[in-house]
Amino acid sequence: MDHGSAILLSLFVVFVAAQIGAEVAQRLKLPGVVGEIAAGCVIGPSVLGWVQPSEALDVLAEIGVVLLLFSVGLETRLDEMKRVGRSAFAVGVLGVIVPFILGSLWAHGSGFDWAKSLFVAAAFVATSAGITARVLQELGALQREESRVILGAAVIDDILAMLLLGIVTALQSGTEIRLSHLLIVLSEAVGFVVVIGLVGTRVMRRASNLLDAPINPLSPLTIVLALCLGLAFAATEFGLAAIIGAFLAGMIASETRQRDTLEHQTRPLLALMTPFFFVMTGTKVELAQFANLEALIALAVVTAIAIVSKLIGGWLGALGLGMRGALIVGVGMVPRGEVGVVIASLGLAGGVFSPRTYALIVAMSLLTSIVTPPVLAWLLRKPAIK
Amino acid sequence: MDHGSAILLSLFVVFVAAQIGAEVAQRLKLPGVVGEIAAGCVIGPSVLGWVQPSEALDVLAEIGVVLLLFSVGLETRLDEMKRVGRSAFAVGVLGVIVPFILGSLWAHGSGFDWAKSLFVAAAFVATSAGITARVLQELGALQREESRVILGAAVIDDILAMLLLGIVTALQSGTEIRLSHLLIVLSEAVGFVVVIGLVGTRVMRRASNLLDAPINPLSPLTIVLALCLGLAFAATEFGLAAIIGAFLAGMIASETRQRDTLEHQTRPLLALMTPFFFVMTGTKVELAQFANLEALIALAVVTAIAIVSKLIGGWLGALGLGMRGALIVGVGMVPRGEVGVVIASLGLAGGVFSPRTYALIVAMSLLTSIVTPPVLAWLLRKPAIK
Repeated sequence: MDHGSAILLSLFVVFVAAQIGAEVAQRLKLPGVVGEIAAGCVIGPSVLGWVQPSEALDVLAEIGVVLLLFSVGLETRLDEMKRVGRSAFAVGVLGVIVPFILGSLWAHGSGFDWAKSLFVAAAFVATSAGITARVLQELGALQREESRVILGAAVIDDILAMLLLGIVTALQSGTEIRLSHLLIVLSEAVGFVVVIGLVGTRVMRRASNLLDAPINPLSPLTIVLALCLGLAFAATEFGLAAIIGAFLAGMIASETRQRDTLEHQTRPLLALMTPFFFVMTGTKVELAQFANLEALIALAVVTAIAIVSKLIGGWLGALGLGMRGALIVGVGMVPRGEVGVVIASLGLAGGVFSPRTYALIVAMSLLTSIVTPPVLAWLLRKPAIK
Repeated sequence: MDHGSAILLSLFVVFVAAQIGAEVAQRLKLPGVVGEIAAGCVIGPSVLGWVQPSEALDVLAEIGVVLLLFSVGLETRLDEMKRVGRSAFAVGVLGVIVPFILGSLWAHGSGFDWAKSLFVAAAFVATSAGITARVLQELGALQREESRVILGAAVIDDILAMLLLGIVTALQSGTEIRLSHLLIVLSEAVGFVVVIGLVGTRVMRRASNLLDAPINPLSPLTIVLALCLGLAFAATEFGLAAIIGAFLAGMIASETRQRDTLEHQTRPLLALMTPFFFVMTGTKVELAQFANLEALIALAVVTAIAIVSKLIGGWLGALGLGMRGALIVGVGMVPRGEVGVVIASLGLAGGVFSPRTYALIVAMSLLTSIVTPPVLAWLLRKPAIK
């Protein structure tokens, strides 16, 4: 089989597996995304080995999650985000501090020196907004107050996680940490989010006519997609995740009068591209690493710490929404997903920890993503106690 | 800049360049696709060097052209294709024979031995349906008789070109050619097209309800997209181009009652993905190879032979449509695009010809794709002489 042929086959396999997985999950009253991740686990190297990770598939996955957060942004207004700003900030900050402290205590307790422990703990910190956003969208819950708090907190979380990663990398490598440098990095990231959010919103409110100016009848869509790709790239240049830029792009595009058309046209794009993200997340699960009891126990402990610490942080921050709302926010912040995987890869590449610790952190990140959707769906569907 | 960041930047640059190129071309009353290819040439290694070819971009380009031919298939009914079957067959056959004869004469005249000349001539043969399909779709001309003949002929052309490439490769490498083997290859390819066309059409006519069976509200779209990827892959397994499978998938999907919704939902997918195909085609143009007069003259001669031979073949085959219709069909068959590039790469890798001949054939393939759209658009827009 030649190379082009092999790639088409893997596209087909990933796409079909996602559809089957989502359908089975939904028939079992679970969110479709659980089935997509599980399908990835089954067709990936761990079980059937039908699909091997490749750069092309990773790029499709990245485009998928970027489009997903863009569409979530399209359903979000800046004004509504501002209203929950205080809660979102508290959730973002506490959701970083609590996992970082508990994570570094666990790492030090398992024998890492302090510098390395802080690095390991950094992998406990960053929430991956993709999983939660997908569940909220699937259940039509994006307009709830809790959803806005989660999305706002995800932005804060990403800024803090980026800073923290910078600090622990410097500590680990013995580089001197300069406060002035950290302040510049922080203000650049905050500046990016604030400028895009405030200035972008104003510009887009007035730019609706410009979106229709090109001859291409689909130009409102193509222009905002260009904006989405551009801001996704720009976010990475400011040290943030690409999905933060994509979310901001969607949020400012929601100010245009073509908003409904854009939402409508984005749906087929999500149907084509997001399965690659969730299935590829599933293919990264390495079941073989946990074939013995000792490893399984270690995984259970790490995952429990990761879940409980984030839950406490998010819940404390969102107490203003009431017990139930705070619980939804806390659960929504739990998934670490691909962000944890990226930090674990950095740790492995930098020689901070062993392949075993790497596998542990990757598995923890993925496990938090797999257990969250059913719980979140259950909490959102359960009729409120009044 | 890290790797993920660099890829997002190139996605952004390619996408924006496509939009600007298409807009400028359309303002100049040219088809948008001309602007997209030209934009690729400008941002590619030849001029600005902002975008380098990469596997990820090539996969996006492939998905783009696969979706394009799928959507063209959605606008095509088997019954209408059958009505033009005889003309399409004649165009397909003559459009292969004439360029092959003229191409091998030219190659032999330029000093290649006969075995190599036949290989070079194979690069003159295969039409790339993508460019013409895009122009026909852009001008809303897919319902014209000429368009059906071109699309049918493109399928025949691809089957014959595949056979021919098998033969010349065997001749070149000194492998014995067995007629029985060729007959098997031919009947497999023809069988694939006929079975998918006939059986698939019947199945899809009855399967409309099944498309709505999954819980996913977009399931008609996701199921036919899976079919599209599956048949694109299957086509390559039968030695055909992926786009032939995608075209067949679209054609049989057009028999379902969800046809209009599918057409509507495919448009945003084309808006996102097809620019990658046309821009990446443009990036493959190597202007530097033609910086001297001698090379330019050689290119002019080769391109003239490629254009005239395909034009004559197509025109002769389509004479049943009248002089004007035959001319439209002839012009529509001219683009060689990425198919010529692929054959040239095989020739280079197999040591059949020099890098200079390779560059010549690549440039010829791309040039035929660039000159065709304006001429085709002009012929289609010109009021008929009655």
